[in-house]
Formats: sequence, structure tokens, C-alpha cells
Amino acid sequence: MNSTQLFEQIVRKRSFLCVGLDTDPAKIPAFLREEEDPVFAFNRAVVDATAPFAVSYKPNLAFYEACGARGWRSYEKTVEYIRRTYPEIFIIADAKRGDIGNTSRLYARTFFEGEAAVDAVTLSPYMGRDTAEPFLQYEGRWAVLLALTSNGSASDFEMQRMASGECLYETVLRTSREWGTAENTMYVVGATKTDMLHAVRAIVPDHFLLVPGVGAQGGSLEEAARFGMNGKCGLLVNSSRGIIYADNGERFAEAAAEKAAELARRMGGLLDAFLK
Amino acid sequence: MNSTQLFEQIVRKRSFLCVGLDTDPAKIPAFLREEEDPVFAFNRAVVDATAPFAVSYKPNLAFYEACGARGWRSYEKTVEYIRRTYPEIFIIADAKRGDIGNTSRLYARTFFEGEAAVDAVTLSPYMGRDTAEPFLQYEGRWAVLLALTSNGSASDFEMQRMASGECLYETVLRTSREWGTAENTMYVVGATKTDMLHAVRAIVPDHFLLVPGVGAQGGSLEEAARFGMNGKCGLLVNSSRGIIYADNGERFAEAAAEKAAELARRMGGLLDAFLK
Repeated sequence: MNSTQLFEQIVRKRSFLCVGLDTDPAKIPAFLREEEDPVFAFNRAVVDATAPFAVSYKPNLAFYEACGARGWRSYEKTVEYIRRTYPEIFIIADAKRGDIGNTSRLYARTFFEGEAAVDAVTLSPYMGRDTAEPFLQYEGRWAVLLALTSNGSASDFEMQRMASGECLYETVLRTSREWGTAENTMYVVGATKTDMLHAVRAIVPDHFLLVPGVGAQGGSLEEAARFGMNGKCGLLVNSSRGIIYADNGERFAEAAAEKAAELARRMGGLLDAFLK
Repeated sequence: MNSTQLFEQIVRKRSFLCVGLDTDPAKIPAFLREEEDPVFAFNRAVVDATAPFAVSYKPNLAFYEACGARGWRSYEKTVEYIRRTYPEIFIIADAKRGDIGNTSRLYARTFFEGEAAVDAVTLSPYMGRDTAEPFLQYEGRWAVLLALTSNGSASDFEMQRMASGECLYETVLRTSREWGTAENTMYVVGATKTDMLHAVRAIVPDHFLLVPGVGAQGGSLEEAARFGMNGKCGLLVNSSRGIIYADNGERFAEAAAEKAAELARRMGGLLDAFLK
């Protein structure tokens, strides 16, 4: 998918919502646990209920790997289901991988080829260009590089000052924007750091940003839009727990849809207000 | 496992060899492909042949994930086999994970609990302390943080100068050594960067270092030992392709054993020469 197609979907749905499928088997409603694959059954119901309000889904691999081979299969089935049923949806594997050479090529093949191919993968930039290179070879697929994350200990390294006067996250943005283009690279910028979105946009005005931290982590959707939106929206704002665990009983999917619809309604207003 | 037990094994085997199980299904001998689980059959044979010369095995998750759920099962079976058959061996899951909060806790549980529990996991430090914290809660288990990697683009960020005058990898070492101790934290330092081992040892004199890059990547075992060894050896030197793909036919396991034995012989000499 290219950025124009993604933007068209955003305009059509009046939403730049990414729903994080951080599906913890311990947190899904009890009645689903009798299903053959409870995690997949949960995800399918959440996706069907929220797809009118979301342009993207982001399964976090940690939650699937925690169940070993069985969990990996739930992940694949989820991706295959979304791809087949909602082909316009942008799927991000939140894997935060980061390796080099032949290993990085294998990760790229794992995520970008076959039945369970996704549109984008999150990557840690620590090891440099070698990490992203194999992912950038795939036409229409995206590397989503961690830049400035929403957690407290982002201050340990990401926000440390370099000899150049920039912070590390700025150096990561400035260096890595040369590896690819705004058509194959996105950046993770936490919604808890909206005061730094100015600095981010000064370096990567055209790139899409994946913004986690709205909701459970306390980030502001409105501030993310005010400081981060560009002429093609340029934002995917993620919410996970606030949507998928909105209700713990029979009506978990309706509750998820309500939360997603509410976020989409606010997003529609922000698109009207800020889209330049 | 604690560092004393690891050191005792190093002295007993006169080796600080870690064998990287980067098992690519396309590269294993043709006659093994008729096995029910060719990757596991290959790993088991390599482990049985090389265990007298190795103190550690390091399966790289990328190679297993590339085969989806089936590959994940091969990984689990490999770990379970090593744990059961060679309980003294130090197993490192080379996953290079890096996430935060509840996600990081899930990764820690995945790798440190259950039948396929390993001794150590490699982690990317980019997001700071939150990444390592859950792993450091497990008694006798280890976080192996990327510090200075063996690849060319380590210069993109790891070797960039900070405002403090240090390089980023030095800041990572200095900051992260406070998160845990030399009993639960190791560092990845590439053998292609042995001239920087002085700087590394100035900051973390007592920690074990996991040193990849000997062999295929051109790093020198002798230099790694000269500049990196401490009073408890303090090194695990990894070789992957040079051992496991030493021969492509019926005698792949014997060939792997010969390569491992040759490295162990050199390591024995280095232990005699440099152990202080």
C-alpha cells in the first residue's frame, strides 16, 4: 500500500485509528475460552466490530509468542483474516525487530511474504541501516522505526544529547530518512511526547508517524493532531487496551466498537480542523 | 545459572565457545529433509556433536520465525532437548527484543518460563531501562544487551559521539550497568571491534561479553581474548555458520564437531595465556 491509498482510506473513514491487537489470553472473556483458538476468535470479533472506524490493525508479537507455536498460529490466522476480509486495512506487525544481514533478510521475508504478509513492521534502529535495509526492498511495504517512544525510560538514550546538539531520536530521524523515502518508512513517536512533535516534524515533515500512548498511557489525541498532522494526515494513532478490553463480557465486541467509534468521531473533527 | 557456574564450565571444557544455531532450512543437508522436523533433527545432531567443545548455544529466533508456527516449535524442541540432555549448557535466545511495560514482561515470561526456558535473551537497549527491567527480575537468568555490534552500520548510531564526549555504546554500557549486576547482565560486543574492547572493559570490567563476528565476519578470536578477557574469562565467543554449515553432506555433524574442537583448542590456549 502506498501513502496515497492510506490517506484515501483515512479521508473515507474519517479516522486515522490503528487498533492494537495486544491480545492477552488471560484477559479475553471467559465464554470465548471454549473456542478452538480463543485468541483468534477474540481478534476476529474485535476486527469485525471496529473495522468501520479503523484504518489499521497492529498485532503486538509479544502477546502471540507468549503462547509459543500455538500463539504464532493465532497471529498468522488473524493477519490472514484481516487481509482477506478487509483488504484495504493497513496491517502493522509490532515486532520491534532489529538484526542485521542475513538475519534481517529472514525477518523481512517472514513478515512480508506468504499468506500472513503484513504491510509494515516496527523495527529498533540501534544497529543502524543494516536493520532496515532488507525491509525497504519490498515495494509497497513499510519499515516503522522506533524514534521517540512513549515510555518513561525513553530519557535513558533516545532523549540524550549528542555532540551535534541534537537528541539521539533526532539523529535517528535525520540519518534514517536517507535510507528510504516517505513511501516506505514511518516512525514511532509517542503521544506522551507531543511537545517534541515540532522537532520531529522539522526533520521528517512528510513521513507517516505511528503514535502510541493515547488512552491508557495518558497521551492526548488532540495534541498529537495539532503538532503532528501534515497535508496527508501523516498520523496513525494507536489505541490497544482502551478498545479491545473495553468490556470483559458477552458484549466485548460492541464495547470495542463504541470506543473505536468515539475515537474516530474525534479524529474526524481533527481532520476537519487541522488538515492543511 | 550464575557467573561462577558458567566460569567453572569454561575451565572444565577449556572453551568459551557459543555455537550459534542459525539454522536455515534451505541450508541443511538434503537427506535430513525427510525427517518429520528437519530443523530439530539438524540441531540435535549438531548439539550432540559439539557439546564437548561448547559452553553455550544461541538459537537465533529469526531463523525459526521464518517458518512460522512450525519453526517456533522447532525452536522450542531444540531448547528443551539441550536443557534435558546437557543441563550445564548456557542457552541464549538471540531474539534482540526490545519493548516496554506489560509487553516486555510477556517477552520475559515467554523466554524464561516453561519447558523451553532459556538462560539468557538478547535485547536492544534503545527504549531504555523499561526494556530490560522485567528480564532482570528472574533469579539466575540474564539480559544480554546490544552494546557495540559487529556490523558496518554500527557507526550510524552506536559509535556516534554524545555531548558527554562518549560514544552511544559507552553511554549504553555506563547507564545500563546500574540496572542490574554482573550476575544478570551481559553485553554484545562484536569481534570486529576489538580495538574498542579497552573502552568497553573500562566501563564494565566484570561483566560477561557475548562476542559475535569471529569467523564469517572476520573478527579475531585472539584479539577478543587479549583485550576482552577478565579474571573469570568474561567472554562467550560465538560462531554460527563456520561451525554448523562446515559440511553440507552426511558428515555435517562430524565436520561441525571438528570446527568446534579447533576453536576450543585455540580457546584453551588463550585461557592459559590470558586468564589473570
